Amino acid sequence: MHPRHCAQCGARTQSIVPPGDSRERAVCSTCGHIEYDNPKLVVGCIPVWQDRVLLCRRAIEPRYGCWTLPAGFMENGESTAAGAARETLEEAGARVTNLRPFSILDVPYVHQVHMYFVADLVDLEFAEGDESLETRLFAEPEIPWDQLSFRTVIETLRAFFADRARGAIGFHHRTLDYPPRP
Amino acid sequence: MHPRHCAQCGARTQSIVPPGDSRERAVCSTCGHIEYDNPKLVVGCIPVWQDRVLLCRRAIEPRYGCWTLPAGFMENGESTAAGAARETLEEAGARVTNLRPFSILDVPYVHQVHMYFVADLVDLEFAEGDESLETRLFAEPEIPWDQLSFRTVIETLRAFFADRARGAIGFHHRTLDYPPRP
Repeated sequence: MHPRHCAQCGARTQSIVPPGDSRERAVCSTCGHIEYDNPKLVVGCIPVWQDRVLLCRRAIEPRYGCWTLPAGFMENGESTAAGAARETLEEAGARVTNLRPFSILDVPYVHQVHMYFVADLVDLEFAEGDESLETRLFAEPEIPWDQLSFRTVIETLRAFFADRARGAIGFHHRTLDYPPRP
Repeated sequence: MHPRHCAQCGARTQSIVPPGDSRERAVCSTCGHIEYDNPKLVVGCIPVWQDRVLLCRRAIEPRYGCWTLPAGFMENGESTAAGAARETLEEAGARVTNLRPFSILDVPYVHQVHMYFVADLVDLEFAEGDESLETRLFAEPEIPWDQLSFRTVIETLRAFFADRARGAIGFHHRTLDYPPRP
């Protein structure tokens, strides 16, 4: 959805292809300001303690009540790893260290790129944040696969346990295609 | 810079911390719409032909006249690799295939994350696009290190040639700290 009003002057925008561009943008009908809309980065962690990983049960929509990895929108002024650690602290009350890039999942149909880090829990002093109902550690056989929140979380956890089984944590990149119609 | 006017209704925004949030956002003083501003992804390629890589000389600011890898802002609806291939076609007129994630560079002081892919040139039918003065292949000893455009390009090319020298192309992630004051 293009913005309807100009961020600079408040006048109405038009959806047109600016000169020298190849895509429709929201262009101000009065001052000519061009508003660009680009994909957002979601950053998160697989917080690890021995053979277990920390999941949070969502207290917010979408996917209220489902289990998820701590993750959220990256903020201006922070690095990807700093954002992932911040989200882990906010959602799971957990401090992590030694963050290693693990997965990048393109989700073009929602204009997002998700990036997960494998990280070590510093201690067991975690607790659910405002956006979580519950936070707990799961060994692989305990993972509630049918109650996970998002495809990016399922893909990341699958890849993590597969890597762990073969004794080598790698780096994974893939694009999620448009979801099948229900 | 926060937007001064609301994208939904055009009224003035205020820079305040919304309830339940921890950061200042541009919030509409009339309709309450919250405008989020997040880091942008820049995606690009190291286009490879045998022992050479393809660089472009910039025809636009910033860094007009400097050499660079083809890269640009990722667009909504595309994957990171599709964006990197598109930018390579637009800026260098070059078709690439077999894109492998190579580097992620966080640039928090400009609210950007740069992601480069190593990619194979399909053929030698390249030509400068509208944003380039010149496009040509460089072997490692020919790289104009002191005329490269951006730190992310320098870091990526350095890592690429170092990996190539030891015979294994890896994956690189790092955060660029605030640049030294001139």
